[in-house]
Amino acid sequence: MQSSDIKVQLIEESKISQVDFNNLPFGSVFSDHMLECDYKDGKWQTPVIKPYSPITLDPSAKIFHYGQSIFEGMKAYKDAEGSTLLFRPLENCKRLNKSAERMVIPQIPEDIFMTGLKKLLEIDNNWIPTKEGSSLYIRPFMFASGNGFHASPANAFKLLICTAPSGAYFAGKVKVLIEEKYARAANGGVGFAKAGGNYAAQFYPTQLAIEKGYNQVIWTDDNTHEYIEEAGAMNIFIRINDTLITSPTSDRILDGITRKSIIQIAKDSGIDVEVRKITVSEVIAAAQSGSLKEMFGAGTAAVISPIAGFGYQEKDYDLPELENPLALQLKKQITDIQTNKAEDPYGWRVKL
Amino acid sequence: MQSSDIKVQLIEESKISQVDFNNLPFGSVFSDHMLECDYKDGKWQTPVIKPYSPITLDPSAKIFHYGQSIFEGMKAYKDAEGSTLLFRPLENCKRLNKSAERMVIPQIPEDIFMTGLKKLLEIDNNWIPTKEGSSLYIRPFMFASGNGFHASPANAFKLLICTAPSGAYFAGKVKVLIEEKYARAANGGVGFAKAGGNYAAQFYPTQLAIEKGYNQVIWTDDNTHEYIEEAGAMNIFIRINDTLITSPTSDRILDGITRKSIIQIAKDSGIDVEVRKITVSEVIAAAQSGSLKEMFGAGTAAVISPIAGFGYQEKDYDLPELENPLALQLKKQITDIQTNKAEDPYGWRVKL
Repeated sequence: MQSSDIKVQLIEESKISQVDFNNLPFGSVFSDHMLECDYKDGKWQTPVIKPYSPITLDPSAKIFHYGQSIFEGMKAYKDAEGSTLLFRPLENCKRLNKSAERMVIPQIPEDIFMTGLKKLLEIDNNWIPTKEGSSLYIRPFMFASGNGFHASPANAFKLLICTAPSGAYFAGKVKVLIEEKYARAANGGVGFAKAGGNYAAQFYPTQLAIEKGYNQVIWTDDNTHEYIEEAGAMNIFIRINDTLITSPTSDRILDGITRKSIIQIAKDSGIDVEVRKITVSEVIAAAQSGSLKEMFGAGTAAVISPIAGFGYQEKDYDLPELENPLALQLKKQITDIQTNKAEDPYGWRVKL
Repeated sequence: MQSSDIKVQLIEESKISQVDFNNLPFGSVFSDHMLECDYKDGKWQTPVIKPYSPITLDPSAKIFHYGQSIFEGMKAYKDAEGSTLLFRPLENCKRLNKSAERMVIPQIPEDIFMTGLKKLLEIDNNWIPTKEGSSLYIRPFMFASGNGFHASPANAFKLLICTAPSGAYFAGKVKVLIEEKYARAANGGVGFAKAGGNYAAQFYPTQLAIEKGYNQVIWTDDNTHEYIEEAGAMNIFIRINDTLITSPTSDRILDGITRKSIIQIAKDSGIDVEVRKITVSEVIAAAQSGSLKEMFGAGTAAVISPIAGFGYQEKDYDLPELENPLALQLKKQITDIQTNKAEDPYGWRVKL
């Protein structure tokens, strides 16, 4: 597919003058255009770029009933020369298709995804924020638009790509609660997929944690609640002495693109990285002995989010305030690559 | 709330003449009207009954991204005198609210639900099939209509009640596969809720089972795969000799209304009923010794669905063909109560 194959319908009057780019929320101001692509009659149709506008669906569309939906999160940046940059975009497309397979949603060809995304970013190029810490958050999503009250896969789907100029996902220090009762994912379930239902399932326990003064939940395995898994919106890294530890991915844990980039950057910076199961008891023991130096989350929306403290079994544990934490070193390294302030030895950065 | 408080907008021309009531599919022909009720500004607004028509939503509506949705399944019947009958409708409303709590969706007041449902059935009364084995399938559902790409609960929701004159859910004999790898629900998860995401999560393993010649999957616990849980669209009953066994409900298993009605009817018919955990090995041993007499599923859509055979570890097991199986006895008892062909000592039947 070529860029010229995409149908384009431009907005009559841009909304951009109404946007305060110095005070951007996360993901709630939307750019002028969106990409829409329908799957029907057994194939993906020609994508259309059109003004950001409502979607109309039959009340029996399976998205409303059976949660057959998946999404991705990506970011576009501008460098000092004004070029548009993406970070490992093919990884998002690949993961979208992994999620699609598990949720019985048809695979989206890489060329439709990449060509469509690039064209959308050309058209809404002015919407990419340049202020440090801001970016254009990109939300590709696919859902069942086919109809019927039979609990079986739909025969029609939609892919949309919407974008939202965004500021930080978390404001201020992040405190987390290590979960002992609720669980995010089952063995043999869909935890590794960016499936819609994985997120709504976290709302209630997260709300309980927020009521207790925490920002997020760190999920543990559903069987023993003894192993650290992920934080729902982020993978989790734990630094004990000078070793950085993160759980291996599994069918319960999302294969985070920020996560694997951080592992690579940390290893190449000479940091001792261990990808292995880590128990809550190990973390508690490290906190008590003083060897627990840092915890941080890593994800596209949050980038790297240092954790100031955590709660477990009605007790709070503070993380030490370090002068030069790994979290901030690694955050600088990855954002410098993303925004073209540093060399990119990995070929991760894609200039449009 | 009174019936007269509901706003009504009638269809200009009914579609009913286009429907072949002798050949009804399940859940894909829709009645003339639907009920719609919006939750915004912290409260449920006045419900509206209007022609069955498309729903329009912002692309950032959280239903598309985070699977914040729940539903119910109910049926309306006509008796010989032409009265409209519901079966334990308040139980559906209560379960909808249980699901709502877990998915951080606001509670729907019982009077909005019941008054709205009754008025909808008055208006579309001609859509209730009278043919044996057919009924008006009722689908109440609630979903997040509020906007934003932040993974947190929405602030606006919709309740809809749509109806579909329907025939049988399963056609022919049902063969099931006892699952050993995939899982439907986690401990501490949302398996007990009728949450949308629970259903899409089952599509892939179910598709694999269908490719092997089965109709449904019988889910086992995600940790050991040793305990029988439920079938996704049905709870499961197993008859060993003259004892009927079904798994206790839990945070992983749906508290089925047909399930608990069958338990009650069976007990009152003098059948030995055990609500207890049942292992796959016990079922296999019973199949091998000949003491496994019946297996059947129970749910609103499927009513009682006798299972003809099951697969486990690449081996198929046939259930015996009995002359007067409990499944059919109990199915007759429950449908006779539902359709006013028998006394209802329980007060389950609700005449409109």
